[in-house]
Amino acid sequence: MNNPQLNKHGELQHLLSTEGLPARILRDILDKAGEFVNVAEGREIRKVPLLHGKSVFNIFFENSTRTRTTFEIAAKKLSADVVNLNIGSSSTSKGETLLDTVDNLCAMHADMFVVRHSTSGAAHLIAAHVAPDIHVINAGDGRHAHPTQALLDMFTIRHYKKEFHNLRVAIVGDVLHSRVARSQIHALTTLGVPEVRVVAPKTLLPTHVEKLGVRVYHDMEQGLKDVDVVMMLRLQNERMQGALLPSAQEYFKYYGLTQERLAQARSDAIVMHPGPMNRGVEIDSSVADGAQSVILPQVTFGIAVRMAVMSTLAGGKQ
Amino acid sequence: MNNPQLNKHGELQHLLSTEGLPARILRDILDKAGEFVNVAEGREIRKVPLLHGKSVFNIFFENSTRTRTTFEIAAKKLSADVVNLNIGSSSTSKGETLLDTVDNLCAMHADMFVVRHSTSGAAHLIAAHVAPDIHVINAGDGRHAHPTQALLDMFTIRHYKKEFHNLRVAIVGDVLHSRVARSQIHALTTLGVPEVRVVAPKTLLPTHVEKLGVRVYHDMEQGLKDVDVVMMLRLQNERMQGALLPSAQEYFKYYGLTQERLAQARSDAIVMHPGPMNRGVEIDSSVADGAQSVILPQVTFGIAVRMAVMSTLAGGKQ
Amino acid sequence: MNNPQLNKHGELQHLLSTEGLPARILRDILDKAGEFVNVAEGREIRKVPLLHGKSVFNIFFENSTRTRTTFEIAAKKLSADVVNLNIGSSSTSKGETLLDTVDNLCAMHADMFVVRHSTSGAAHLIAAHVAPDIHVINAGDGRHAHPTQALLDMFTIRHYKKEFHNLRVAIVGDVLHSRVARSQIHALTTLGVPEVRVVAPKTLLPTHVEKLGVRVYHDMEQGLKDVDVVMMLRLQNERMQGALLPSAQEYFKYYGLTQERLAQARSDAIVMHPGPMNRGVEIDSSVADGAQSVILPQVTFGIAVRMAVMSTLAGGKQ
Repeated sequence: MNNPQLNKHGELQHLLSTEGLPARILRDILDKAGEFVNVAEGREIRKVPLLHGKSVFNIFFENSTRTRTTFEIAAKKLSADVVNLNIGSSSTSKGETLLDTVDNLCAMHADMFVVRHSTSGAAHLIAAHVAPDIHVINAGDGRHAHPTQALLDMFTIRHYKKEFHNLRVAIVGDVLHSRVARSQIHALTTLGVPEVRVVAPKTLLPTHVEKLGVRVYHDMEQGLKDVDVVMMLRLQNERMQGALLPSAQEYFKYYGLTQERLAQARSDAIVMHPGPMNRGVEIDSSVADGAQSVILPQVTFGIAVRMAVMSTLAGGKQ
Repeated sequence: MNNPQLNKHGELQHLLSTEGLPARILRDILDKAGEFVNVAEGREIRKVPLLHGKSVFNIFFENSTRTRTTFEIAAKKLSADVVNLNIGSSSTSKGETLLDTVDNLCAMHADMFVVRHSTSGAAHLIAAHVAPDIHVINAGDGRHAHPTQALLDMFTIRHYKKEFHNLRVAIVGDVLHSRVARSQIHALTTLGVPEVRVVAPKTLLPTHVEKLGVRVYHDMEQGLKDVDVVMMLRLQNERMQGALLPSAQEYFKYYGLTQERLAQARSDAIVMHPGPMNRGVEIDSSVADGAQSVILPQVTFGIAVRMAVMSTLAGGKQ
Repeated sequence: MNNPQLNKHGELQHLLSTEGLPARILRDILDKAGEFVNVAEGREIRKVPLLHGKSVFNIFFENSTRTRTTFEIAAKKLSADVVNLNIGSSSTSKGETLLDTVDNLCAMHADMFVVRHSTSGAAHLIAAHVAPDIHVINAGDGRHAHPTQALLDMFTIRHYKKEFHNLRVAIVGDVLHSRVARSQIHALTTLGVPEVRVVAPKTLLPTHVEKLGVRVYHDMEQGLKDVDVVMMLRLQNERMQGALLPSAQEYFKYYGLTQERLAQARSDAIVMHPGPMNRGVEIDSSVADGAQSVILPQVTFGIAVRMAVMSTLAGGKQ
């Protein structure tokens, strides 16, 4: 079976998931992002013309100002024209099918779609449908994947840890409902991290999660023992008063990241979070703002990584 | 009486309606759009600087992501600055009058307004009010007019049929509530189409529609007999369960465009639809996606036609 | 105590309030705005590259299409990239703190924030929190301040009256709830206006308003007597049927600006209003549209003044 993310030359055609992407593609994106970080931190020239004259459509069937904004900034820094579409309030409410909406946007000369949808597989469906000169980036689909988040996490890890092959990484929290966790696990294993742990109560883990190549811990102290990287997950509000969790306070008691628990990890371990944080639920403020936190650099690197993904898809040479 | 759409030199000052526009103006816009289609399909340079430094304000008192987006793309391809205003949620809700809102936007150095409003005549009212260096484009007002839709339809017909003077054209569906149909009829007759038909049940036709210069058919097979162009209209959801129509299924049974009915038309007839489509209500999927459908090219041509209208108004030379 | 609006060289670092700003800073902004008015009225080049490559984030926790649009236009005329964020519908609703949201936006390489918030002091809080290379403009916080509105008012007064030191100025209306009035009073007194009056019923005046250096009038005819400038305030709808005011009609009867009342002022007095106007409530249409009204020039000058503030903060030289 063909990989829907690669063209016949083995180049990236769409970014839909970190699952199934060769390590070479991941590394190329991280390398290219590294060049943009320098651009982004330079004070004189911060825009590059790599996507000048191209149209990037942010089509968000599910609202996310934060994610949409990072893609918008990345596209503008590449000199693309950006069109933001909140499709929830548009034609689909008039009875038009998803693929008719996509066909219409293609006919408007879109070059790239950034798609966020509450249904797993939506970005794949769109990618399978569009013409070969249109590229699709999955900005989060249901519980399935959020590959640019995982790539910026990988960039952050490489920035601080240099190598992947000697790391112990713990992913902590609601793995069950998290597209971020799935994309992180695939990226980490592809890039050669020898030990990936998931740390969560049983009710927040998928069945057979071990088959993804991870070690399972239900005890936070044990799960963090000697790790190099702690990747926290956001606990979504709607989980907190459901059948899966007794309360936010109870969750923090057992799985909140405190300084005491972090002391189990290596002394140079870094702490990551995809945001937005629930302080006092999954993470203590002293850790979020502490010396080991790299949560804000993640956001900055996210711009560079999205620039790298877009310019890779557009075939842009630097 | 002066034509509010032309300046004293007979040049286009505002685009409010296809009614009353000389054929010369319509042809000039189609010719200019033809040049932009080449620009738009070229791969290297797709933006032109004709409106650089100009501000285009999309003021939508009625929400329409699709139409707003096509104008936004067209304006950005002309290098204009685009400001999107959803006025429904803004000052008018604070008690400000429509003309005060317009005065304020003029004072912000708008060069062009693209106006969508649920009240017929709103664009005319605004055009009559603004200073002479500000241009107004009607993007749909009530049941009155939607001239850029009609112009892109004319461009599409000319693209596929080359001439207007030898055509039979059928407009099918809810003519009564359609600003699109009114604008199409005026454009077709002005450009010299000898036979324009409307095909609809009596409840969906305006009284005295014949006075617009069209032939009336209530039977779809007869109405499509030997036509060169089939222009479908969208059936709005709110009509489907009212007093005017028994049901969507019943409508499809008598007025839905199927392959069998389309066979009544000339074998090289083209099928058009302004979108968004209700598949299985006014049009069958096999026709919408069939070889005679030019529905997606309409969308593409719509960008070029809107670029042509904007650059004509701005007096831009190519 | 340090002035949070100035850097250690005494240059403008943030624009949070007209209170506490030296006259020198105010005059520099007005002078620079004067240069942009010429640019803005020129027909050939209307954009300047002073903020090219900079990112301006409009973060509006309270909706205001009009104010947001003027900042967006000003930023685009300076060639900045503009990102509009309606934060009300975003992360804060997901439980993220205001300062976490701000930290994230900073990490996205924002250069400037334009902040509107319903809570007094929000812009100060953000300014105190961001890194030294990020600038904050208060676009209205609670009842506290709206400095760019006051600055455009000062620009308008200087444009028509040339000098401040010989003026009588009356501010009329709901001073109690008005951030605009507070910012106007501080700017007028700083720029040397010898007589600033407030004209309002007791229920719409702050206690001890005289301490701001103004004279209090409850009678409109007396308050307007011989003034050079009449600055009307907007009466917000929600005040009209509360305990503070019997009705809009009653308000107009005593405090509405009519031609008869305006005749008490000097014959060359100008009439100002920050918009949107309630015609027939605080101002009669004949005055709003009359020869002494400078309400629309205020809007135009507002673009230039916001360009001046942004380019001053960015350290842009012309």
